[in-house]
Amino acid sequence: MRNAPTKTPIWKAIADALRSDLAEGRYGPGDRLPTEAALAERFGVNRHTVRHGISALVDEGLIRTRRGAGAFVAATPTDYPIGTRVRFHENLIAAGRRPEKRVLDIEERAATAGEAGALALAPGDQICSYHGLSFADGLPIAVFESMFPLKRLPGITAALQENSSVTAALIKSGVSDYTRASTRLTATHATATQALHLQVAEGDPLLRSSGVNVDEQRLPVEFGRTWFVGDRVTLTLEN
Amino acid sequence: MRNAPTKTPIWKAIADALRSDLAEGRYGPGDRLPTEAALAERFGVNRHTVRHGISALVDEGLIRTRRGAGAFVAATPTDYPIGTRVRFHENLIAAGRRPEKRVLDIEERAATAGEAGALALAPGDQICSYHGLSFADGLPIAVFESMFPLKRLPGITAALQENSSVTAALIKSGVSDYTRASTRLTATHATATQALHLQVAEGDPLLRSSGVNVDEQRLPVEFGRTWFVGDRVTLTLEN
Repeated sequence: MRNAPTKTPIWKAIADALRSDLAEGRYGPGDRLPTEAALAERFGVNRHTVRHGISALVDEGLIRTRRGAGAFVAATPTDYPIGTRVRFHENLIAAGRRPEKRVLDIEERAATAGEAGALALAPGDQICSYHGLSFADGLPIAVFESMFPLKRLPGITAALQENSSVTAALIKSGVSDYTRASTRLTATHATATQALHLQVAEGDPLLRSSGVNVDEQRLPVEFGRTWFVGDRVTLTLEN
Repeated sequence: MRNAPTKTPIWKAIADALRSDLAEGRYGPGDRLPTEAALAERFGVNRHTVRHGISALVDEGLIRTRRGAGAFVAATPTDYPIGTRVRFHENLIAAGRRPEKRVLDIEERAATAGEAGALALAPGDQICSYHGLSFADGLPIAVFESMFPLKRLPGITAALQENSSVTAALIKSGVSDYTRASTRLTATHATATQALHLQVAEGDPLLRSSGVNVDEQRLPVEFGRTWFVGDRVTLTLEN
């Protein structure tokens, strides 16, 4: 443990210099950084020190390294608020992105025990499951599965088949407004299927969000799970 | 897209059966599931169908697969609320876990541009950086780095060196209460150093949370980044 103010270590100075390069747009998302050898020459240090500086920026999510291929500038992630009103379309427009959805599957089936619990249904009650992909500016940012209670929302399947907007489909089903009651978040590996849909590598880190939306009477109208690509989305929460 | 209620597919029935086994405690955290061959025999289906059922439970975070080693029951993750009052010790006690911290480094240094921005400081202002490991029941669940503005909290370094509780150190520095103003969340890969500290494999998914805590005058008193182990922690948010 050090106590007194210390001189900035060289690797931190290198991280700061590279961070400034990124902030000034000297390298754009997806660009490859100069090789370790080139950076070592530029800063007049050894490769080990360069690697230490780069690893600090990896920790901050600014750059990514691929074994054998070098260091790349991470794409600027889309900010996605997860407060009381979670709206895919509005969230992306507010972040300056073009929202888009691709439906993978819409089906009616029996709820699993977990789904029934989240939706305050009896196990085996019928739900509509809406499975799809979300895009920002044409780049896939998430796969999602949303479950709706058919007993409460008998017309929801047809409404979702007509229009991929959950908000529009809920309005058509008589739910004029809904809010997020609770959200649970963790990090997982992308499975092979998820990796294929999201155009990432199998095993890449995904942020998994599960949430329950309730109507004005606080009755659950949607239980959803979303797997966001880690370096494409930052969930934000303002209190 | 299917519309009519459908019979439960076999892989879903297998996922449901395994989920019940887990819920009943038939297998505990860290236990290896029976082999695909054994499960295929138990359910009278082929291995492909078993794999499909298992992958559904992987998506739910209930089990993990390791290439060549089989499927294992994931440890029950610790619930960690990230509302307006984020307190490590209180959060873990409320989750029925034993909290513990290990200090890795406490140092005073100049703030980077990003840290200065988050703490409403001028770039180059001095901060105290508190770097450590958090444990639940002896298992590492996160690495964290917290930054405190020295101009506002000149005694914080000594207070943290005496006692690893942030809340206690802030009280000693005259901050009787603090709340979370904003949180940003994403998923990242564990770096080699993080993996070593957290006892996970390099590249394993971590949930990165950055947050700003403010005092009763809404002045920033702490800017922190925490990397939680994906399958050991679930962040929860109630509205």
